[in-house]
Amino acid sequence: MDCIFCKIVCGEIPAYKLYEDEITLAILDINPITPGHTLLISKEHYPTLLETPPEVLSKIIKSSYPVVRAIVKGLAAEGYNLLLNNNRCAGQLIPHLHFHIIPRRANDGVSFHWSPNPARPEELTQLATKIRSHLA
Amino acid sequence: MDCIFCKIVCGEIPAYKLYEDEITLAILDINPITPGHTLLISKEHYPTLLETPPEVLSKIIKSSYPVVRAIVKGLAAEGYNLLLNNNRCAGQLIPHLHFHIIPRRANDGVSFHWSPNPARPEELTQLATKIRSHLA
Repeated sequence: MDCIFCKIVCGEIPAYKLYEDEITLAILDINPITPGHTLLISKEHYPTLLETPPEVLSKIIKSSYPVVRAIVKGLAAEGYNLLLNNNRCAGQLIPHLHFHIIPRRANDGVSFHWSPNPARPEELTQLATKIRSHLA
Repeated sequence: MDCIFCKIVCGEIPAYKLYEDEITLAILDINPITPGHTLLISKEHYPTLLETPPEVLSKIIKSSYPVVRAIVKGLAAEGYNLLLNNNRCAGQLIPHLHFHIIPRRANDGVSFHWSPNPARPEELTQLATKIRSHLA
């Protein structure tokens, strides 16, 4: 499998490992957005959330606790983002499930530039109907 | 409790509800980043991940499956971001645990403007040591 995260998991490529259990590996991102930017990686190869067994994702999210706590304490972070990008258009560069944990502090220069705009009620109703039709 | 999400959960404030179970409520964000921008909310009031019992967070993340699937199918989304902002400096406006689910498609104009830069190995080693010291 030509996947950089699989190679890190099996030790073929070195990484700054922070935490490891049976299911999850946490490593430093070597192209960090902020210092301490960490990747919480599934040890098994699953491309995205929808392909990951819920039990596995549940264990990965539980592993985030010691890692987030250590980042907050160790780096005196004032906050953090937990971010999962799924599929290329959403910014997923490596198709192997990983959460970004991004340590944050006030005025750190990071901003998720987006433009939330109030939506019209008719639009929201229509969207809700479309989504709900797949939740029956 | 003067919390807008608690008021939505108890029905005091209306919302575009998409999904609901014992632990989790999914509603449309009325100031969406992209059409179908959804909030996955804990029904109980917990400010951030670290204050949320792991069992609860685990159930919330499991609830994301039907919701993400319905968003992808219902809106023909090509991808999505799952984003948890914790604490004000990280962009958390309402101190009640919620994941953003942001439907994405190619060239949708959304970008998380960040500037990842390669970090120096010495810097990464130092950061890893600081974080690991809280993971013993």
